[in-house]
Amino acid sequence: MVRSAILALCIAASSGAAPKDDVRAVLEEQTAAWNRGDIEAFVRTYSAETVFVGKEVTRGDKGVLERYRRTYPTREKMGTLSFDILEVRPLGSGYASVLGRFHLERSAAGGGNADGIFTLLLRKTPAGWKIILDHTS
Amino acid sequence: MVRSAILALCIAASSGAAPKDDVRAVLEEQTAAWNRGDIEAFVRTYSAETVFVGKEVTRGDKGVLERYRRTYPTREKMGTLSFDILEVRPLGSGYASVLGRFHLERSAAGGGNADGIFTLLLRKTPAGWKIILDHTS
Repeated sequence: MVRSAILALCIAASSGAAPKDDVRAVLEEQTAAWNRGDIEAFVRTYSAETVFVGKEVTRGDKGVLERYRRTYPTREKMGTLSFDILEVRPLGSGYASVLGRFHLERSAAGGGNADGIFTLLLRKTPAGWKIILDHTS
Repeated sequence: MVRSAILALCIAASSGAAPKDDVRAVLEEQTAAWNRGDIEAFVRTYSAETVFVGKEVTRGDKGVLERYRRTYPTREKMGTLSFDILEVRPLGSGYASVLGRFHLERSAAGGGNADGIFTLLLRKTPAGWKIILDHTS
């Protein structure tokens, strides 16, 4: 009786923690890929159903890849990316939202430092957690 | 057999459509409240768990109310609000995301017209669908 109660608590606790860790891992994958200049790996955290909202709306991982390649054509323009993750919220078992800030450390020639805020929506897919909505401002 | 297949189809169709209609109704409630100058009713579409991301992060419906009262102190500054809803996505049965554009029609004295883009996350609660994340830029 006590053992099954403890087991139930452990399952409840782990089901709450696991998506948060998985989602944080996606964001770590993003900064690691970016900071080694690998935009293709960076964009693998998105999916065909992604909607990316910056100044304009970009659809799909292919659209996002094309946008990043155009906006950040050189290693110097990419700079060094870091995130400050303010909040990860699991939404049921298959979705999660993220609130965070980004900082881009960049030389003057690369365009100088840049800062902003982002909200993400991620979905658990057979290929892992993918960002399906990214609003960066 | 055929009848139960049709019934199953109807249930599937309605469970897909209903959240979208409910979510659109929340946004219609917002513009109706705003355009009669009722900021309190406008903010009832948010909840205590709301995170509002504009230039800064505001938390909770009380924080959102205080922010709107400060930013739009007069009917003239409120102007007339309209939305162009580009996409509503149900996320499981209890959540939905929205992508849209807003337009604020305003006199020069009120601050002039304003336009922007927003992404929302809504949650189905016992008190109806509430916006729990609003990123407006």
